[in-house]
Amino acid sequence: MRKILILGAGRSASSLIHYLITHADQQEWRITVADKEGAHAQRLVHEGPSVAKGVALDATDPQARAALIAQHDLVISMLPAFMHMDVLKDCLALGKHVITPSYVPDALWPMDAEFKAKGLLVLNEMGLDPGIDHMSAMRILDRIRAEGGRMEAFESHCGGLVAPESDDNPWGYKFSWNPRNVILAGQGGAVKYIRDGQVKYIPYHRLFTDTVRISVTDLGDFDAYANRDSLKYRKAYGLEEIPTLLRGTLRKAGYCEAWNTFVQLGCTDDSYAMELLESATYNEYLDSFLPHAAGRDTRTMLAETLGIDPRGEVMGKLDWLELFSNKPIGAAALSPAATLQRLLEEKWKLGPDDKDLVVMWHRFRYSIEGQHQELQASLGVIGQDQTHTAMARTVGLPIAMACKLVLNGKLENRGVLLPLKPAIYDPILNELEKYGIVFREEEVEV
Amino acid sequence: MRKILILGAGRSASSLIHYLITHADQQEWRITVADKEGAHAQRLVHEGPSVAKGVALDATDPQARAALIAQHDLVISMLPAFMHMDVLKDCLALGKHVITPSYVPDALWPMDAEFKAKGLLVLNEMGLDPGIDHMSAMRILDRIRAEGGRMEAFESHCGGLVAPESDDNPWGYKFSWNPRNVILAGQGGAVKYIRDGQVKYIPYHRLFTDTVRISVTDLGDFDAYANRDSLKYRKAYGLEEIPTLLRGTLRKAGYCEAWNTFVQLGCTDDSYAMELLESATYNEYLDSFLPHAAGRDTRTMLAETLGIDPRGEVMGKLDWLELFSNKPIGAAALSPAATLQRLLEEKWKLGPDDKDLVVMWHRFRYSIEGQHQELQASLGVIGQDQTHTAMARTVGLPIAMACKLVLNGKLENRGVLLPLKPAIYDPILNELEKYGIVFREEEVEV
Repeated sequence: MRKILILGAGRSASSLIHYLITHADQQEWRITVADKEGAHAQRLVHEGPSVAKGVALDATDPQARAALIAQHDLVISMLPAFMHMDVLKDCLALGKHVITPSYVPDALWPMDAEFKAKGLLVLNEMGLDPGIDHMSAMRILDRIRAEGGRMEAFESHCGGLVAPESDDNPWGYKFSWNPRNVILAGQGGAVKYIRDGQVKYIPYHRLFTDTVRISVTDLGDFDAYANRDSLKYRKAYGLEEIPTLLRGTLRKAGYCEAWNTFVQLGCTDDSYAMELLESATYNEYLDSFLPHAAGRDTRTMLAETLGIDPRGEVMGKLDWLELFSNKPIGAAALSPAATLQRLLEEKWKLGPDDKDLVVMWHRFRYSIEGQHQELQASLGVIGQDQTHTAMARTVGLPIAMACKLVLNGKLENRGVLLPLKPAIYDPILNELEKYGIVFREEEVEV
Repeated sequence: MRKILILGAGRSASSLIHYLITHADQQEWRITVADKEGAHAQRLVHEGPSVAKGVALDATDPQARAALIAQHDLVISMLPAFMHMDVLKDCLALGKHVITPSYVPDALWPMDAEFKAKGLLVLNEMGLDPGIDHMSAMRILDRIRAEGGRMEAFESHCGGLVAPESDDNPWGYKFSWNPRNVILAGQGGAVKYIRDGQVKYIPYHRLFTDTVRISVTDLGDFDAYANRDSLKYRKAYGLEEIPTLLRGTLRKAGYCEAWNTFVQLGCTDDSYAMELLESATYNEYLDSFLPHAAGRDTRTMLAETLGIDPRGEVMGKLDWLELFSNKPIGAAALSPAATLQRLLEEKWKLGPDDKDLVVMWHRFRYSIEGQHQELQASLGVIGQDQTHTAMARTVGLPIAMACKLVLNGKLENRGVLLPLKPAIYDPILNELEKYGIVFREEEVEV
């Protein structure tokens, strides 16, 4: 029996756990799900009482964490990014393989040699984005290069959205994953990409205006805002000389323009507690970020300050959120971001019958024998239900499939890895197709 | 003999050292100036070889720092803010009084009782701003309150600028203090103030647009942008109930609108190294922050992206800096802020014959026996020369005068102090008047 430990059982863990349980007997797996709420972990393993158990763990407790890790062969860390390095150090010390959907922290690379020396794998960025984006892009990039193509531009965008059949609000958005990450998106420092050979930087306050409109076959129109540091993927993808490389996040067309209102006002700042009472209204919340003007109402001031059409679509989206109403915040001294999150969690809740949508879109421009070519690859996944959302499936299934590769000795490489090689991406992309996670490729006239 | 140690001898230390040396024999003082460059420290004490010495100190070396502090009775810390707490902990452990122009770090308040228990003073915010602003405001506030006045609004603004006679560039600005602080101004988190009873927050990217125009008698027109957290001065100044309280920074009229260009582009970001070679031009630097547009020149793109009049004053200011030229940056991989600083240090250099200007302006609105009153108090100080700038004099002299109060036992209070009480502000403001640092008060028709 090979023992697998899942640390942290958030929204994206359901499909991962389901896959592990249903493959447990065949694969000779025994699974432990550890979460800060033991009852929640136990609920998640109800399908497989003979092969899986749920336990309570305060992952910030070094002794308890190490004791649990020590009892397993492979650790899947679904914990928030700030806890990631602690888990990785434990796994190195205790000699355990790790798989995680998280970005590689900069502090991990110096430990690469130590993981290698102990024959251990740390397989990072194994979810949707990062994860499926890498695998699907690398499969096509490797194919283009094998055919003698020379890459001229690569753009890759992904978004976790709401399915068209459940899209009943003017934002075209509901939460299918951590709401806090949606509110704070883009705040980790200047965004970087390269376009026509020139490196470009976008400060946070311009991120939701410098967007690009993208049409995805059968799925509609989206706006993409640039995502973190695209530059580092030049090396990772073997595209050191590429003139254009941009990774972004997709939202339904129109969302970014409206979201920019919050960024411009300062509503997404999470660094201080506001002086607002529990009984304060969302109208007063907005007022706090607007210049003072005696006798002018909040909506007028906001429209004038930010240059928004008072009868336009952006204002319609804000109205729908009841931001200009006397709706009380209901909690005191929250940060601007937490105050906004409180409202959005209510308004953008994925209902019991709602389904979510994951969209991924790549564009490859390249030349082959002097001819310019363009290939687009797109993925649309609709959730099964509130538990097995498209987000949970696309994040969790690649991780689960990677467990098979690791524990069955299918991967030769050791150390800090990303899913960039055929030995990883081929079997996983092939198996994902059996689960309906299939990319559609289209040659586009240049 | 009482021994005084000055830690850190930057631009603002000259007048402080001059005062201490010229009063050394009468006051029975002996002075040590410690700087990371020993030769610089020695040059600064050349006026008083018998009473003062300059020494080299790496203030980040805990042993060396503590050894030097141990030999003195009073420490004046002119070090950058990030080193401040280390010095304060040493002074507490070694039983030394401290005077500093720095803001009180939040981590200092919990040490108040320990300083009191040891009979020690930590006199903070003793320079110009913070410093003279507190003293001059509290003197007038205490007087208004003593007369039975009820405060309705208090606004206080200060700027370190260039004297009208040396103002020969379109920005109306030259560096009279740390250039880096000018570039990064406003980046320490959201700005907070209160207006007509409503707390207001301004995010960094709106700081230089939400300005107020202020006319100071004999000194001209200025724009004020809000400075840090004005809210905490409600308690400090005893103005808990005041409906309007705003502290700001003054720049010559028109500066803020042009500076906003840099903020909007992201040029003031100090968090990452740009991918620009030493030979890259300032035009390429600007291009890095602008959306890509084949065949369009940088000036046109900038004007369109930010909505700037291509023939207006803002563009004139940018042109004067040679930002659209092929002028090479001359250093590789700097941060955006450091790249801008390199250019501005050349363009905004205070020349050998230039004089600087310090402007402070307070407005007090209050009611007394049902009558609304307004009082304005303004200060304009012009530098003597490049060494004894208005900035060095207004920062250094109050600190030096506070040494007299502390070492001659004129202050009864102990612990963490600001200059908010008559026992401190009266003698210092009175002595400053002898040095030409005099506020002008005007009653204004309401």
